Amino acid sequence: MENFKNFKLIVSVCGSKTISKEIYKISEELGRLLAENGFIVACGGLAGVMEAVAKGAFLKKGIVIGILPSATKESANPYISIPIPTGMGESRNVILVSMADVVVTVSGASGTLSEIALAWKMGKKIICLSHTGGWSEKLAGKSIDDTRTDRIFNAHSTQDVIKLIKNIYQ
Amino acid sequence: MENFKNFKLIVSVCGSKTISKEIYKISEELGRLLAENGFIVACGGLAGVMEAVAKGAFLKKGIVIGILPSATKESANPYISIPIPTGMGESRNVILVSMADVVVTVSGASGTLSEIALAWKMGKKIICLSHTGGWSEKLAGKSIDDTRTDRIFNAHSTQDVIKLIKNIYQ
Amino acid sequence: MENFKNFKLIVSVCGSKTISKEIYKISEELGRLLAENGFIVACGGLAGVMEAVAKGAFLKKGIVIGILPSATKESANPYISIPIPTGMGESRNVILVSMADVVVTVSGASGTLSEIALAWKMGKKIICLSHTGGWSEKLAGKSIDDTRTDRIFNAHSTQDVIKLIKNIYQ
Amino acid sequence: MENFKNFKLIVSVCGSKTISKEIYKISEELGRLLAENGFIVACGGLAGVMEAVAKGAFLKKGIVIGILPSATKESANPYISIPIPTGMGESRNVILVSMADVVVTVSGASGTLSEIALAWKMGKKIICLSHTGGWSEKLAGKSIDDTRTDRIFNAHSTQDVIKLIKNIYQ
Repeated sequence: MENFKNFKLIVSVCGSKTISKEIYKISEELGRLLAENGFIVACGGLAGVMEAVAKGAFLKKGIVIGILPSATKESANPYISIPIPTGMGESRNVILVSMADVVVTVSGASGTLSEIALAWKMGKKIICLSHTGGWSEKLAGKSIDDTRTDRIFNAHSTQDVIKLIKNIYQ
Repeated sequence: MENFKNFKLIVSVCGSKTISKEIYKISEELGRLLAENGFIVACGGLAGVMEAVAKGAFLKKGIVIGILPSATKESANPYISIPIPTGMGESRNVILVSMADVVVTVSGASGTLSEIALAWKMGKKIICLSHTGGWSEKLAGKSIDDTRTDRIFNAHSTQDVIKLIKNIYQ
Repeated sequence: MENFKNFKLIVSVCGSKTISKEIYKISEELGRLLAENGFIVACGGLAGVMEAVAKGAFLKKGIVIGILPSATKESANPYISIPIPTGMGESRNVILVSMADVVVTVSGASGTLSEIALAWKMGKKIICLSHTGGWSEKLAGKSIDDTRTDRIFNAHSTQDVIKLIKNIYQ
Repeated sequence: MENFKNFKLIVSVCGSKTISKEIYKISEELGRLLAENGFIVACGGLAGVMEAVAKGAFLKKGIVIGILPSATKESANPYISIPIPTGMGESRNVILVSMADVVVTVSGASGTLSEIALAWKMGKKIICLSHTGGWSEKLAGKSIDDTRTDRIFNAHSTQDVIKLIKNIYQ
């Protein structure tokens, strides 16, 4: 079992399918930084935040896993390096969270909220980019329920996300 | 296809595993009313709200479906009439929501929050019992995101829940 | 936990979507007998064997659960009394097997074969109607691998199926 | 969408948890060859064939994805580079098949049989290593049902597997 500890960290990034140009830019930057720092990026594989973060990581030669709701990989955005078509619809959200060492959220509607809630339940570390609006803004720094004593991390910038991940896993 | 319209309505009830006696009583009453009004009750099949609502419905001879995270039915509470062991862990939440005509929540921690978020995403009608605390209180009357123009229904009593369901499906 | 033992037995029936009139008739008769004997029938909820067995049970006022691959219940055949849209595609096969006290197969192509294999792996009792062709004929009386010492039951008629189930659970 | 076609092929390898030294050696060689030829290897992430094929690919610096039944990654064998804990039990078999460009089987008991059946149903190319016994031997060169006109490929050696994959995707 000599190499067990050598897993690269997997950072699952969650966020909306429909986003503004500004959120796209932030997400792409996040993907770039995650790849530059050697993390594997996972996402839902589709458009919006999922595409932007994949693009950023892809352009830096990072591994980008797309956990797709569809049963075939054609729905993956063009920056996914490893498409995983699950055919499981919304249940793929559970896998995306379950496989994560850290869950990072950008903006976010109901899908992202479900992922934050599941991540909390599964004991995952969660980082919300609070300046991106949506559920990320609403829940950054908060606690979901009293089963845990920690809180959701509040990141004020993409670089903050990297610092927080490094702090968690040092 | 003559009888297609004859499906009984399925009401999925979501809520915490660990609850006070008061919440247990409210949940049991909810189960009783749902069964008396001819609805099929579905829940996560375990303890707390899940057990109480099952008990209420069971004692009124209602059908109570338990969508279990485990692969075997032994984990079902004793009031489940149809145990469905999925072996899918947290993904069973998705099925519980997906099968519902209406999702009703009682109190609720992170698991319930994930179910509310998924229900919203799937376009389900959601009723939160606001006087039971937890995420039910926080989200009753609210909107999860702007993809829908309606809101989560705010029920102030178990009888309110029945009235709301009847209004929705009349 | 007084009533735990009172679960009705769930019999999951697996078989092809496209079948002959003869197989339809056998499947319908199977559904009728299962309902008359007080078993809950579960199936994949769609056409062919799934529809026929549902019809037979439905006409005898039996409970017929349809575990659907789709995310909405519209795809259910008209004889399903409890549609469970999972949105999980082929993974719904796993649930159909997992929830069964007994798995019965009629004829059967690749989907049915996957269900027989999964049922074997999960330690389920399996009954194949050998005179219906397909994988039911090929595997009736056989063993799938050496992890179990028993064999798949070989039923020569629908009445045989009932006898076998009664023998197993007496 | 310029890079869409640049997905590396994913080869999912299925086989038993409990195997002989000889089958271990064949599986490890298969993993080595798959990695040397630039394919991503996916497997169930546990012991036996899953470990051996992962080891072979890992030692050649290949990407090895482990689709785990458990909800946490601790169960992964030490040669998995990307563990994906699904928490979905046997349903993870469906994902392993769904994500594959080619499914290769080594020996194999009931779990492998379910994967061959699902792969056939999903229209996947399937290669069975016929000299490894189990369901691989029984089904190599065969057809599962008449919904497809092709057959399961019969590979007589690990090098045969590589040749067959190259033929399929050239």
